[in-house]
Formats: sequence, C-alpha cells, structure tokens
Amino acid sequence: MSRKIRMGMVGGGQGAFIGAVHRMAAALDGQIDLVCGAFSSSPEKSKASGRELYLPEDRCYGSYAEMIEREKGRPDRMDFVAIVTPNHMHFPPAKLALENGFHVMCDKPLAFDVDEARELVRLVELTGLAFGLTHNYTGYPMVKEARELVRRGELGPIRKIVVEYPQGWLATRLEASGQKQADWRTDPKRAGISCCMGDIGTHAENLAETITGLRIRELCADLTTFVEGRPLDDDGNVLLRFEGGAKGILHASQISIGNENGLNIRLYGTKGGLHWRQEEPNTLVRLYSDRFSEIYRCGGNFGWLSAPALAHTRLPAGHPEGYLEAFANLYRHFAGQIRARLEGRAPTATELEVPTVQDGLRGMLFLQAVVASSQNGSVWTKVG
Amino acid sequence: MSRKIRMGMVGGGQGAFIGAVHRMAAALDGQIDLVCGAFSSSPEKSKASGRELYLPEDRCYGSYAEMIEREKGRPDRMDFVAIVTPNHMHFPPAKLALENGFHVMCDKPLAFDVDEARELVRLVELTGLAFGLTHNYTGYPMVKEARELVRRGELGPIRKIVVEYPQGWLATRLEASGQKQADWRTDPKRAGISCCMGDIGTHAENLAETITGLRIRELCADLTTFVEGRPLDDDGNVLLRFEGGAKGILHASQISIGNENGLNIRLYGTKGGLHWRQEEPNTLVRLYSDRFSEIYRCGGNFGWLSAPALAHTRLPAGHPEGYLEAFANLYRHFAGQIRARLEGRAPTATELEVPTVQDGLRGMLFLQAVVASSQNGSVWTKVG
Amino acid sequence: MSRKIRMGMVGGGQGAFIGAVHRMAAALDGQIDLVCGAFSSSPEKSKASGRELYLPEDRCYGSYAEMIEREKGRPDRMDFVAIVTPNHMHFPPAKLALENGFHVMCDKPLAFDVDEARELVRLVELTGLAFGLTHNYTGYPMVKEARELVRRGELGPIRKIVVEYPQGWLATRLEASGQKQADWRTDPKRAGISCCMGDIGTHAENLAETITGLRIRELCADLTTFVEGRPLDDDGNVLLRFEGGAKGILHASQISIGNENGLNIRLYGTKGGLHWRQEEPNTLVRLYSDRFSEIYRCGGNFGWLSAPALAHTRLPAGHPEGYLEAFANLYRHFAGQIRARLEGRAPTATELEVPTVQDGLRGMLFLQAVVASSQNGSVWTKVG
Amino acid sequence: MSRKIRMGMVGGGQGAFIGAVHRMAAALDGQIDLVCGAFSSSPEKSKASGRELYLPEDRCYGSYAEMIEREKGRPDRMDFVAIVTPNHMHFPPAKLALENGFHVMCDKPLAFDVDEARELVRLVELTGLAFGLTHNYTGYPMVKEARELVRRGELGPIRKIVVEYPQGWLATRLEASGQKQADWRTDPKRAGISCCMGDIGTHAENLAETITGLRIRELCADLTTFVEGRPLDDDGNVLLRFEGGAKGILHASQISIGNENGLNIRLYGTKGGLHWRQEEPNTLVRLYSDRFSEIYRCGGNFGWLSAPALAHTRLPAGHPEGYLEAFANLYRHFAGQIRARLEGRAPTATELEVPTVQDGLRGMLFLQAVVASSQNGSVWTKVG
Repeated sequence: MSRKIRMGMVGGGQGAFIGAVHRMAAALDGQIDLVCGAFSSSPEKSKASGRELYLPEDRCYGSYAEMIEREKGRPDRMDFVAIVTPNHMHFPPAKLALENGFHVMCDKPLAFDVDEARELVRLVELTGLAFGLTHNYTGYPMVKEARELVRRGELGPIRKIVVEYPQGWLATRLEASGQKQADWRTDPKRAGISCCMGDIGTHAENLAETITGLRIRELCADLTTFVEGRPLDDDGNVLLRFEGGAKGILHASQISIGNENGLNIRLYGTKGGLHWRQEEPNTLVRLYSDRFSEIYRCGGNFGWLSAPALAHTRLPAGHPEGYLEAFANLYRHFAGQIRARLEGRAPTATELEVPTVQDGLRGMLFLQAVVASSQNGSVWTKVG
Repeated sequence: MSRKIRMGMVGGGQGAFIGAVHRMAAALDGQIDLVCGAFSSSPEKSKASGRELYLPEDRCYGSYAEMIEREKGRPDRMDFVAIVTPNHMHFPPAKLALENGFHVMCDKPLAFDVDEARELVRLVELTGLAFGLTHNYTGYPMVKEARELVRRGELGPIRKIVVEYPQGWLATRLEASGQKQADWRTDPKRAGISCCMGDIGTHAENLAETITGLRIRELCADLTTFVEGRPLDDDGNVLLRFEGGAKGILHASQISIGNENGLNIRLYGTKGGLHWRQEEPNTLVRLYSDRFSEIYRCGGNFGWLSAPALAHTRLPAGHPEGYLEAFANLYRHFAGQIRARLEGRAPTATELEVPTVQDGLRGMLFLQAVVASSQNGSVWTKVG
Repeated sequence: MSRKIRMGMVGGGQGAFIGAVHRMAAALDGQIDLVCGAFSSSPEKSKASGRELYLPEDRCYGSYAEMIEREKGRPDRMDFVAIVTPNHMHFPPAKLALENGFHVMCDKPLAFDVDEARELVRLVELTGLAFGLTHNYTGYPMVKEARELVRRGELGPIRKIVVEYPQGWLATRLEASGQKQADWRTDPKRAGISCCMGDIGTHAENLAETITGLRIRELCADLTTFVEGRPLDDDGNVLLRFEGGAKGILHASQISIGNENGLNIRLYGTKGGLHWRQEEPNTLVRLYSDRFSEIYRCGGNFGWLSAPALAHTRLPAGHPEGYLEAFANLYRHFAGQIRARLEGRAPTATELEVPTVQDGLRGMLFLQAVVASSQNGSVWTKVG
Repeated sequence: MSRKIRMGMVGGGQGAFIGAVHRMAAALDGQIDLVCGAFSSSPEKSKASGRELYLPEDRCYGSYAEMIEREKGRPDRMDFVAIVTPNHMHFPPAKLALENGFHVMCDKPLAFDVDEARELVRLVELTGLAFGLTHNYTGYPMVKEARELVRRGELGPIRKIVVEYPQGWLATRLEASGQKQADWRTDPKRAGISCCMGDIGTHAENLAETITGLRIRELCADLTTFVEGRPLDDDGNVLLRFEGGAKGILHASQISIGNENGLNIRLYGTKGGLHWRQEEPNTLVRLYSDRFSEIYRCGGNFGWLSAPALAHTRLPAGHPEGYLEAFANLYRHFAGQIRARLEGRAPTATELEVPTVQDGLRGMLFLQAVVASSQNGSVWTKVG
C-alpha cells in the first residue's frame, strides 16, 4: 500500500531557524510525514519541541543515537533522517544513520572538513542509500532552466561567470549578543575553517558549477574579517578559473549592509548570457547579441519552458513561488528516490534532481582551496 | 491532548488547480491534516484522487453530502470543510456543513449571488461556527503592513486609490479548447453574473477595502467582452468613490496579454503613499512628500515591521515568500480559530486575520453593483 | 550658404522652468541659434535675462509685439518664435507671429480654449507656416518604436489602453507660497478651465492617441480638487472609449505623493502588448501571448529598431538619453522643417515628426470634454 | 563684456562617435561656442566636417598644429582645445596646446602611457592652464551625492567596494569588419597596453576612487582575450586592496553579451551602503542596517539633496537626465574655470568639479599595474 515517506529529524528544536524550514519544505507537497526527532541534546527540550509539532512523546528522542537505535526496531520506523544541526554535527549522525540503513538528507556544507566529507562519500557508495544535500538554491525552477539553456548550447561555450552572495546581517558583532545563528557560524569549533565562505560561499560555488556544468580549476581568494574580535572570515573575494578556459568572480559577504540574501549569478557564453537573482527567483533574464533580452518567467502554464523547470514549479505564472518551494522541491524529489526503492524501481530523472554527497565533497574542496589561498597570501590555488 | 486540526475537502480532484493550492497551503505549517474528501462528484474519481493523497479509501466520498453525513458519526471526524469548487457549488456544501456543525473554509467569491451570500452570513451568525474565505492576497505580510500604516494614520486621510488586476490568459477563446479553468469561469451557469470581475475584480475590491478600511460608496463600470462568443465580461474599468471622499480606479482584465497575475495597488493620503504588487509581494514602497521613498521589505528579522506583518512571515529577509505562504497564512490562522474553540478560549487577534463571510458578502455586493452599472449604460451606481 | 536656424523666444525669463528647457533643447544639436527674446513683460527683466544668455542688448525686447515688429526689419532676423509663456499667453504671440510670417514653436496646451485653438489651426493653414507644439514626450525614441509596432500590426487591433500621469508636487497648497510654477497653473485666469488635466492630462491623451493612432470617441471623467482653496482640479480619473471599440483608462494626478513625473502607458491588442514609462524612457517592454516578454532598449547601434526610433536617438545603447534629448528631437526636426523651406524642398518624414497645431486642437477638445463630463455629474461625453 | 567661451576641437570628424558627444555636451548649457576644429588629418575631410557644423571654412584646419598656430594670432581666438582623438593622439595636441597658452579638455584615458601622463601633469603645473579630463561618469548628480554621503561619514569607514563595467559589444571580432570604434580600441599602436581595461576599466577605477576618496593600494588582475586574433584584453577581473583596509573587486568586460554600458558601483561601510548604476543614473539606493533602504532620486526640486548634487542637475525630479547631461556638466564647469580666469577671480568649488590631469595620471598608473599584474601571472602588484 502506498504511504507517505517518514522523516526523523536531528536538530531543529525550539528557536532554530533551519529546522523549521526543513519541516515546512518536507510538509508542503504532502509526500512526507515527520514521525520522530532528536530535536535537542536535552531530552526535555527535545520533547517540548516534539510536542509543539504534535508528535507522540515516545518518538521525541534525547539523542540522534537513541533515535536511530529505537527507530530501527519499529515496524513503522522512519525512512530517512534529516540533519539540520550546525556544521560540526553533520557527520556523526549522518555516518550512524547510513551505517544503520537510513537514508539521509543533510544540511550544507556537507561536513566539518574534507576528511569527513570523503568518509561520507565512501559510506554512501558502500551502502547504496539515498543521500541528499540541501543546496536548496539549485532547487529553483529558473536555475533548472538556466542549466538547461547552457546544456543545450544556447549560450555557446561559457566565457565568464560572476556569482555573488552578499548579506549584511553580520556587519556588527551580532554573536556577542548570543544570537543563535551568529553564534555558531562564527565559532571555528562548530563552523569549521570559515564563516562566510562556508556558510554562503559554498552555495555560490554550487550554483555556478551546477548551472554551467564547469568545475572551478583554480582560484585566488582574498578573505577578510572586518568585524573585530571575530575569529573567522566575514567577507571574501575570489578570482576563478574554470576548466575549459572560462573565467569568473565569486564574492560572498556578511558585512554588505542592507543586502538580505542576495545570491545571484550572471554568465556569458559566445552566443548569449543569463542573469538570475535569488531574491526575485521566478525571473531569468536571457541576453542576446543580436536581439533584445527576454524575461523568462516561471509558470506551470508556460509550455515553452524546459521540462526540468516545469518539474520544479507548482503554480501558473504570476503566483510567486519562493524559498520554501525551492527547498520543498529537494524534499519532494528525495521522497521520490525513497519511494522508488520502496517500489523496486529506478528513480526518475526528476527524482534525481537533488544535490548529492559528491556535490557536498566538491563544496568542501572549494572551501579548503579558498581558505588555503587566502592564508598563503592570496595566491592561485588548485581546487581538489 | 494537542493534535492537528482535521480538514475535509469538497472539490479539488485530479486536474484541478485551486484544490492543490488549498492542500499545500493547509499542509505548510504542520497545523492541519487532510483526513477526508469529496474530491469529485464521481465516487471513482474521488477515490482515485484520495489515493494519490494517501487517504484511506473509506474517507474518499462520492459527494459532499455523504462526507458530511459520514464524518459526523466518527470520533476522529474532520473539524472543518474546505470548499474549492466552482462558484455555483460554494453555497450548497457550505450551508450543509454549517448546519451540521462543521466549520467552513470557502474559496471566493463567496457565492453565486447576493441572496446566497446573505444566507451564509445568517447561518454563520446563527451557528457561531468559524467561517473563512480565501481572499488569499490579503494574507501577504506586506498587505498587513500597508493596512497598519494606514490605520496608524501615517499616510493621513486617503485621497486616491488605484487598484489593478491585469491578466492575459483569456485573450483568446481558451474555453473552446476545453481548458478546465477557462471553461467554468466563462460559463454563466457556474460562474454567475461575471467572469473577470467575479474572479479577480473581487480580489481587487477586497484588497483596496482591506488596506484602506474605506468602503466603496458608488461606482461607474464599463465592462467589456473582447473575445467573441464569450457570454461574460473579460475586462472591466471602474471609477470608484469611497466613503469619506476618496476617489479611485479599479480595473481588472483577462485580455491584457503578457500580464500574469498582476494584482497591485497604489494609494495616496495627505501625508504619503504606498505601492504594492502581488508579483513581487515581499516589497512595499512607501512614498513621502518631503523625503525619499523607502523600500519596505518583508523579513522576520526586521523588528521595525508591524506586529501583524511579522505574524505573517516565516523567514528572514531575502528568503522570498510567495503565493502559497500567503495562502497558508489564512489556513494557519483558521486552524488557530478552531484550536481556540477546542481549547475553550477566545481566538487571538492574529487568529482572526482571516477574511470573513462578511467580506464575502461585501464582494458580492460590489460585483452586483459593477454589473448593474455596466448594464445600465455605465452609470453611477451605489454599492449595497 | 548653410547656416543655423534662428530662434526668438517669448517668455522664459529668469526663474522660469520651461524656458530654460526650450533653450537647452534647441541648443543640443547645434542646429539652432537663440538670437533674440522677449523674455519678460518688463524690459529691464528681459534685458537682464538676455544678458545671462550672452545676447546683444538690442535684441532683448520688452514685448513680443516689439520683437516681432523689430525682427521683421532685420536681414538676420529670427526664423521662428518659441512661445514658453503660461497658457493664456500662447495665443496672442502665436497669432501675431504667424500673421507676420514667422514660424512658431509653442508650448502645450495649444491655447486657453477651443476657440483660440481653432483660430490657430486656421492661421497655420492660411499662412502655410511651420507650427510645432511641444508635446515633448512623444519625442522619445521608444514612443516612436511603440507607434511603429502598432502601425505594422504587430500587436493586432488594440483592445485596451491604460495611460497614467501621476505627480505629487501639488499635494499641498504650494501656490500659497508664491511658487511660480504652481501659481499660474492653479489660476483659472492663466491656466484655463483645468489645472491637472490641462497641464498633464493632455500629455497623456496625446501619448495614447499618438501611439495607437486611435481617437478617443467618448469619455466619462471624475475630476477632483483635493487641496482646499484651489479653484481647479488637481486629480482626475477618466474612462475612455476609442474609435473602433478599444476601451481605456486615463488618470492624471498632482496629489499622488511621491510620484515625480510618472507618465506611462500600457496597451494591449489581440496579439501582444506594450509598456512604456517616461521615467525610464529608454526601455519599452513588449509582451506576447506565446513567448516571453522582450525588453526593447534604445540604442543607435541596435539595427533591429525601427527607422523612426533610430532617427530619434543619438547614442549607443546604455548611454541614457532623457527628457532634454526627447525635447531636443522636436527642435531638431522643427529646424529641419524650416531648413527645408530655406532650401526649397519638401520636409522629410523625420522632419515632420513634430506635434502639430491639429494635435493641439485635439488636446483642447479632449480637455473640454473632460471638464464638461465631470461638471455634468461624470456622464459619458463625446470628444469634439 | 560677457561672452561665450570658445572651443576648438581636435578630432571628431564625420563618423566619429565621441566627437559628436563632446559637441552636444559643450552646446547644451549655452556657455560654449564651437569656433574652429581640426576634425581630421585630411584637410578636405576636416572642412567637410566643419561645414556640417556651420563653421566658416577658414577655421576648419588640416591639423591641430595648424589650428593652434593660426588661432593664436586671432583676436577672437579659441579659449580651449577639446581633444577627442584615439588614445595615442591625446598627448601631442595636449602638449602643444598647453605650450601655446590654450586650456585643454581631453578625452580619457589621459595618454598613451604613464610617461606621457607625467609630462602632461608637469606642463599643467608649469603653465597654470586649465586642464579637464572627460571622466564623464563622475559628472552625474547621483555620483556627487554618493561622494558627499561618504565624505560626511554617513556610511562610516568604507569596508567593501564592488565596481563593474560590463559591455558586450566586442563579443565577436567586430574590428575585422572595419568598425571604427572597435578598430582603434583593439590596436596596440593606437589604444596602448590595454583595450578593455584602458577604455572602460579606468572609468571604473575613477568612479570608485572619486566616490570613496580612497586610493587603490595594490591589486591582483586576471585579464583575458576571449576573442581569437585580438591582440589586447577584452575582459578583466581584479581584486583590489585600498588604503585604510577596504577591499574590493573591479571587473570590466567587453564580451558580456547583452550588457550595454553597465558601469555600476556598490559600496559598504560600517554604517550603511550605496548602490548606483549608470544606466539608471538618476537613482541612488542608500542601504542601512537598522531601517529600510531609501531610493535617492535626482531632482532640482529636492532640497534635501546635497549642494554638489543639486549643482549637477537641471530639471525637477522625474525628468530623466542622462549621459549627455552628465557630460555637459563637465563642460559647463570647465567653461566656468576659464570664465573665472577671464574675470580675474578664483574658480568656485562647483567650477572645479571637473576631473583633472592628476586623475588622468592616476588612471594610467592603475592601468599599468593591472597589465603588469596580469602579465606576471596575476600576482599582487602595487599601484604607482
């Protein structure tokens, strides 16, 4: 009998931001039930969080280890684990889940460092389990459209890529106030070797490589900590050289005051160009050399969009879909991957439209190169 | 014990547009479970639709009457009925649900005609049940912010209001192709006395009156059917006079090619003005006479937004929320109203932020006046 | 021998706004020399103004009558008179100039009332002299492009036209401060029967009729004076019916706070649509029913623009041309008309791209109908 | 006696682009008369060009040397020389003009190389003559406003600067077609050591240093020639480090298809930020950390703009001023500098708002550093 896919969550207790996002994204399309969680390392807090989510008390666990252990024994056990903890707590539950036969949906960046990332790649290959990474921004329909236009050669070979991710929320020492999001992101023990580049620079890297299908070969990075007393970078400017000769710029910032969540990309080939901005995600500008620009717009009724774009939109044009809808696309497809296994079939191309553990490793390699370049005097450094 | 609120749906079977919207909106915040439905007047189709939604077969009913009858007898019965049928099928299930003690969430316009609307108002008052109307566009946080700015007198008394709702999807005789959405909206037997003005003009009226708190006193309407063979209007231009002396313009169109879902409003008082566009809903432009315009932006982290705006947003700034999120706000608050009853308490102000049956009657009176004005030679006509 | 065309100016002394605009517009293309002027009714002020313009004292006259009389006798006499006075002072110098063989470039609206307008039409026909009217907004290249797209049938027959002209500068009683521009525009003795509709509504009418080639057949107008103590309208909403069945809306306002000079037009035919906004004049949005919108951009290097658009732009794309350049297009072409006469040839199509005295009469008839409609209870009223 | 300032032009004959721009800019405000020119190295072509400009034949010279020699002897001799030739022909006429007592307005970049630039600086200091450089983009009112906001400390110390200048017109080998603008810009003999960076990168550098008042201390540049067979760069990405610790990015491109003339700047200090785009020059976005962004708009009626911004605008808000108006600001102020000398007074602060020969040297040093960095493997390189 057909049923919803069952999710257990690690992290995301009261006061967390990204946990609630994952839950809404998982709920939107009616494919997934949240059935249990280890929402906090305090059993009391975990139960209190679960109660607000209308979960039965016996499925609100005090630790991810307990959750994995106990769920294993249930006939209605969870199908997958969603990991929404800070960076340093991605690897331990992901490893344990994989080792115990649970699929994993993990927040980004994949892990605390490259070694952990490589171990997760190994485990996924070994177990054959489904593993998704929430590089949610590539879940937007217009990102799919952009990727298809590049793939079909509509722009010609790509020459130049400018990808940016400016934010302004860390322009002051917010972490000193105890603000939870700022606190762990600026702490090397929990965030890893980078704040700004790890948190948002990796999204920019993932977006650029996903759309163009080109890999960054080498880079020259100039990271800065503008806010005094902060141990990690809050801004970074990077020159990029891609395989095949394309050049690029990536910059990310958390001190660009007044910028909200300004991820955007511009790319140019020999025949045309594309502009996309996350804050107005339903629009994609297509540029030509010999005619006027076109404003591509998202809309389920626009038959002239590519199949992958249409597979990521729910509404007719002019009914704006946003961040949660793009995030939900990942969950919907990931549920599809699990359903395919339940049904004993191969996943469809659409169901495979979820960033992978390999994408996660790629992000960690990028991050490693960026930090190394900057620490060595902003010299050119190979990726991977 | 705390539990999710239970929803039964009337209409919204396979191929329907708005039914899926209601389901996603109800699911997003994890407050509501879809537990049953009469998705189609064909029992087979209803069951097939329910199966796709992972519902048990015995709660997929062949008619709303059967659903209401059978659910009444269940201990885990639905709490409310969501009505997502064409206009002519709003009243019968709404009436029956109210008469049988079920709360009702109904799509707009409220009913087929003013008489039905008045009867629903009477029944809601009589039964004391919760009744919500999905004028979803007023569920956007920036609409709440606009209303608060007007309420607090920040703009001074309002002088001029321009509200528009241009679409282009009916610029040709789409209904001739059998397209489901076009088919019933252009059919007087199912849509009522108007196509364009009933379907979207009422949204524009609701938006203008909600934000300003002013009622349209009289109007002069020029409706047109541009597409040959169509029995109802597909475009309308209306001059407005509001209580208290404000003047305005409302125009709605389904033949404005290239427009998607362009609901927007501009209003001006003695001290300032506001612009808002549904297609970029997270932005509200505030205009002044003696300083530069400000770009209000939606964001849960913007403490300087009004409480009602903050109560309608889930994410930090720059994470775009869209149509489904605004729609979900209505469902979340409506669930809150029902929960308040379960908990024996009065609903909070936020829970009451759902358009009411009275708003629905108001829309029907507006519609009646618009059609009468136009039919009588576009003469000035009182509303209500 | 080839020489510049010689201009004499009536009005436009120190402190005037539009006089300086006319001078810059006339100077830009190096085709016209300002050689004399009656800048003020006070001979002293006229001379002081002329001195600032580096004119010889003996060509700074104390009245337009003196200027016309004295210039007639000079071998290097002016070729044409530019009239930049308030509305009530358009007719007398225009008439005298025509009667004395001088071509005339006149600010809009053409005259104080319809009778004066008809008399000017008669005189222009009688004398065969060149007469230009500075409906400057139709001098923009993208307005020409829009007109060409309509003419070539690219949009199909036009169904709907929305033309707006919101401003906010008269939201308070600015004229009470003695501000010169506000003072005469709100004075029935100098402005005529209307403030807002005469000053800017006529621009909107001219834009709509110029682009579409359709004439307004009848209208229903609701004019308002929002600012207490002001004897003329400061806002107006008008329903339009065009020859051939198109419907429309025109609204103009001087109390729409925060609006600067927001003339804009949207129009829709059976096959497509166009949007243009004066404040971003180098962009024209073209809308389709079956593909994405295109962003037409002004640029002398864009060979795919129409010839009339190219004939009104001076620069490559991305080098913004503005208000003065559009205004200067009228002067350049008008100078061409005069040069054609000097050279004994017919003017080219481009040289004829200047609004005519007939356009001026059309504006006065529109204005008369608008005011009559509003005064008679906002009833439908024929134009002309 | 008061009179217009007299200009002689070097270059700018038939078919040139920038010569016509200089003439329109000089004409706009009625302060300058074009009295003579050496428009071409061919005397016939020079005379033909002059004839079209209504110049007497005896002041259309066959060479700049002849012009300078002959004008020197006239009582009504030109006041200054405007140099509008390709880069390699800036220095010789500038030097000769200065040596013969003529003021000079020169197109950018200042010279062919740093040595020439230094020599011009020396000559200007020696002679005390007026020297202007047409870094026209800093002539926009909103650039002045931005500079004032920084100067007044409204943004706090500047941390990050992103300045871009994307164009797309050289995405193919246009010079092979003989197109005049492309031809000399891609020719090392006439353009110098760089195409893209010299032609437009220097504008970006000038804009960033002008607004922030900060100098680029060192940079790391990655220049590319994407179009085969082109001997100079057509794209460049540069990391910047400014005096005082600000970081930045500058990129310029002539292969970014679909971009027209996209110069823009974003800058962020500890207290706020600014965004400005040349293609929509009348708008300046001001960003804050604790309130909503403001849309600064250009307008002579906006008393709350800074004095320098108001001194660079001619029209009320909403009457767009563009490229030629900004260019004309330089000519107007330069004419003011000459007039000040004629009147025996010091120039006003406004008259000094013209880029100087020192700005020109600065641009050449920047260019030298960019090219050296790139040629040496994109290593960090000091400027100057």
